[in-house]
Amino acid sequence: MAEFELIESIRARCTQTRDDVLLGIGDDAALLAVPSGKWLAVSTDTLVAGVHFMQDTAARDIGWKSLAVNLSDLAAMGAEPAWATLALTLPAADARWVEEFAEGFAALARQYRVALTGGDTTQGPLSITVTIHGLLPERVALTRSGARGGDGVYVTGTLGDAAAGLRQLQSKSPGDSRLLERLQRPTPRVAQGLLLRGHATACIDVSDGLAADLGHVCAASGVGAEIDADALPASPALLAAFDAGTRRAFQLAGGDDYELCFTAPDVDSGDLLDALAHSGCAAARIGRIDSGSQVRIRDAAGNPVALPRRGWEHFA
Amino acid sequence: MAEFELIESIRARCTQTRDDVLLGIGDDAALLAVPSGKWLAVSTDTLVAGVHFMQDTAARDIGWKSLAVNLSDLAAMGAEPAWATLALTLPAADARWVEEFAEGFAALARQYRVALTGGDTTQGPLSITVTIHGLLPERVALTRSGARGGDGVYVTGTLGDAAAGLRQLQSKSPGDSRLLERLQRPTPRVAQGLLLRGHATACIDVSDGLAADLGHVCAASGVGAEIDADALPASPALLAAFDAGTRRAFQLAGGDDYELCFTAPDVDSGDLLDALAHSGCAAARIGRIDSGSQVRIRDAAGNPVALPRRGWEHFA
Repeated sequence: MAEFELIESIRARCTQTRDDVLLGIGDDAALLAVPSGKWLAVSTDTLVAGVHFMQDTAARDIGWKSLAVNLSDLAAMGAEPAWATLALTLPAADARWVEEFAEGFAALARQYRVALTGGDTTQGPLSITVTIHGLLPERVALTRSGARGGDGVYVTGTLGDAAAGLRQLQSKSPGDSRLLERLQRPTPRVAQGLLLRGHATACIDVSDGLAADLGHVCAASGVGAEIDADALPASPALLAAFDAGTRRAFQLAGGDDYELCFTAPDVDSGDLLDALAHSGCAAARIGRIDSGSQVRIRDAAGNPVALPRRGWEHFA
Repeated sequence: MAEFELIESIRARCTQTRDDVLLGIGDDAALLAVPSGKWLAVSTDTLVAGVHFMQDTAARDIGWKSLAVNLSDLAAMGAEPAWATLALTLPAADARWVEEFAEGFAALARQYRVALTGGDTTQGPLSITVTIHGLLPERVALTRSGARGGDGVYVTGTLGDAAAGLRQLQSKSPGDSRLLERLQRPTPRVAQGLLLRGHATACIDVSDGLAADLGHVCAASGVGAEIDADALPASPALLAAFDAGTRRAFQLAGGDDYELCFTAPDVDSGDLLDALAHSGCAAARIGRIDSGSQVRIRDAAGNPVALPRRGWEHFA
């Protein structure tokens, strides 16, 4: 399989089109039309074999996840997905692997109407970099810097499932497919991000671990936060598979959940929480923003909880 | 050096700002304003250590080149550079290496007023993916598909220097610094691309080798081309360092020159060639588009010239 055939194989599978793509794959650059009155949101995430996923992960799952983690960044800004570029570095041009990778990528792209508009294919150690483009009306973006003292802290869905899935995978135990699915096929909370616009004061996606990511919000907003470790939402699968201490570690410091952690004034939050629940992904109140400067964790009885380990950090 | 410090080191050096960057490095996505009436041009290129550059290449040169090859894609579209994202995968967080890389990247970014708006830093085998964004008025973009029978074929600058520099580097001969500079620090022909708008019928940048890249134009335009191998522009450094046969091979099939190859009706080309010469990078007429379907090469006497080797292709 030559480079040309590899690109054709991807193009043939990523068929989502959009009227605002004026020129797609195949020239020196794509040409795209941003509607007037809209801002462009751009984010880039890389997945490296052996670091972000195990070498033997199914190509289909890698394709899905490489787009999902980028869509999650758009969700955290409240942006609507539009276009993606794909830089794929492969040790060898394995036709079957590329087909399955493209099918995984395309399944999610179809779901969110993302057009693949270009990219690059190179030979080297397996790694994928996606750059995602989204659109949003001027001045409504969710950022990390708007949290204010007194705001409630909320999180969508459940926490800790992806870390639990990874633990099961690493221990080569049979594992719970619901947990593995959260690890391998995360659902970006795009619809929920759109609902948060105009309501949340700050937002971030939980990729490094709740405590670390909420810490980024606190640093950007110049505030602190107190989290109730007993209020963190857990899935039935997580509750069934791990003891309370392990669960808590996964929920606080496990990464890769791709839920949204957001802040909002509590007085405003009733309708918002109803809307989120109706969207198919409810949110839970897990703490409160205060005038401190860090994330502090307590249990329901008010006792301090030590953070089990840091969130994911490269070069740590 | 932790991931946070690494990002800070890059941010501190890439200081080019732009009014149209509404939110830059540090949130889940950058927020950018595309002026109404402009189209967005987006391109992505990856450089992999050991494939696109030798492992011991200076970090400063890698930083420069990772942006230059992307700017070259914008040049080939006639787009004006605006924003870039940088996905940097590093085996280790070597502070000195990162500083020098960022300085090389920033030097070129300043020159073309490119704001670095975000990216990702991950641990893994050395590789760099840049996604570049440019702007251009609606409907004036240069593409690969507009070449017509009878158009002249032109190329900016000189060909073969980068391949000659690579040969010198590989043979560990002292080498000519002018050739090495063409390999390590290519000049994207951005100003020339802007001059071509409204005049060139098709354009591509010479990254894989002239014959291969002109072949992409012919395929996209549904035409053929005949090239005069004796008309290919050669630099004094190339003329001094290699014999005629080797030079010709480098000029026809060596990649990495990042000159622009374009087509234009000959009747229109006088003023255009004057303007290019005044821009500091003259263009030469090297052949003619015809109704064939391939690139054919002849010498000045009309004898066919065999293509010495294919242009660069991954997985070949």
